[in-house]
Amino acid sequence: MNFLTQRVAAANSLLCVGLDPTGADEAVVAGRLREVIEQTAPFAAAFKPNLAFFLARPGGVGLLQEIRNLIPRDIPLILDGKFGDIANTAERYADFAYDVIGADGVTVNPYMGDDAILPFARPGKLVFVLAKTSNQPEFCLQDEKLARGGTLSERTAAVVRALDETHGGSLGLVVGATQPQMMQQMRRHCPQQWFLVPGIGAQGGDLAATLQAGLRLDGAGLLINASRSLWQAADAGAAAEELQIQINQYRAVVA
Amino acid sequence: MNFLTQRVAAANSLLCVGLDPTGADEAVVAGRLREVIEQTAPFAAAFKPNLAFFLARPGGVGLLQEIRNLIPRDIPLILDGKFGDIANTAERYADFAYDVIGADGVTVNPYMGDDAILPFARPGKLVFVLAKTSNQPEFCLQDEKLARGGTLSERTAAVVRALDETHGGSLGLVVGATQPQMMQQMRRHCPQQWFLVPGIGAQGGDLAATLQAGLRLDGAGLLINASRSLWQAADAGAAAEELQIQINQYRAVVA
Repeated sequence: MNFLTQRVAAANSLLCVGLDPTGADEAVVAGRLREVIEQTAPFAAAFKPNLAFFLARPGGVGLLQEIRNLIPRDIPLILDGKFGDIANTAERYADFAYDVIGADGVTVNPYMGDDAILPFARPGKLVFVLAKTSNQPEFCLQDEKLARGGTLSERTAAVVRALDETHGGSLGLVVGATQPQMMQQMRRHCPQQWFLVPGIGAQGGDLAATLQAGLRLDGAGLLINASRSLWQAADAGAAAEELQIQINQYRAVVA
Repeated sequence: MNFLTQRVAAANSLLCVGLDPTGADEAVVAGRLREVIEQTAPFAAAFKPNLAFFLARPGGVGLLQEIRNLIPRDIPLILDGKFGDIANTAERYADFAYDVIGADGVTVNPYMGDDAILPFARPGKLVFVLAKTSNQPEFCLQDEKLARGGTLSERTAAVVRALDETHGGSLGLVVGATQPQMMQQMRRHCPQQWFLVPGIGAQGGDLAATLQAGLRLDGAGLLINASRSLWQAADAGAAAEELQIQINQYRAVVA
């Protein structure tokens, strides 16, 4: 996670700018992507395009490659693909994310085990593994209590910590912001790892409670994602700066 | 699963032809895809392209659209994307699979709960949910024993059965062929659902044991996938026919 740590320090920011482009007109969408990237870059610790929103558009892979070239090289690009497949198939997804798109990191689904995670942990890359997500489904596998104690999410966190410690510090977690007590639990399992945190803003997560529960003792360790609130803002740069400032105010209190 | 049932009856086949294209020369790969599809179609109950192997290639989405047009419309095309994201993001993956590619079905990852599954259950579509996969990782979440009893895989199977019964019979499971006792366990939880079964051939699964453990009483309910063994065969049609015949011999014994 060195690349991320460097950018966080340089920009004094924990803000991750999510790119989930919506809209029917391709030229308008491409223009808005350029605008959001340019305006938010000074305040961004990372950018996170969600693969689904690109694949659903004509020429979506090309559009992803274009935004790769618009994002300054000192800001990590995390491709949110929630990839989950084994061995040689996971290698092909890693080829796609890192070679075809030029991403610096990915999100990965742990259901298929470490076989589905480790192929993404190439040198220097950032791998965020889904642990406790921001949705609250009727049938929630993540909250299943295990015979060994704890929930499935907690087991995932423990596995990711173990893998991170043996794989050069390239692994982190995805932890949603909608349940601060879960954030606290994940932090207990992973005191050192970076968490990518969706769920603030449109999904209703509470920023103060999330930072309180999840920040490391050094005031870092959380990458707070905002997508829709920036995309829909009249001035995406101002909205990003405001979020950066809010986050840093809480960091100062907590750290 | 009516579309699949019809094709299985019409072709008298439970064979799923997996398309995981490998090779550096794009023209050679496109030619081999055409050849494999044409030669194996008479024996195929379904085709299953794996998304990773296409995305990793230049023009991969276009190549997927091309093979959609080569696959006869009476044979289901299952896009093996192991999609796993929530609500409006899952809708975008469903748009990609069904509208951009023209797939008839998908594979889906259950880690994020029913939120991540149900957006794919559009009318007439086939949704196969990862339950017990063919790999055997060091850290295996699927085999975790739950406090409520049974393993995580078993819970997934029970959830999918419940969702299938309330969503028009469009859901099935992915169950690997490498552990026949797991196949039997999954069948106990889901007596009626269709299982998509990777792991025969290159991955070492035993065909007879798999069919013995997994076939329904009507001699159907399993879609046996073969990818590499057909792709690498000198005569893919002959290899597919041989597998179809082998499978049907066991069906006659078991049913």
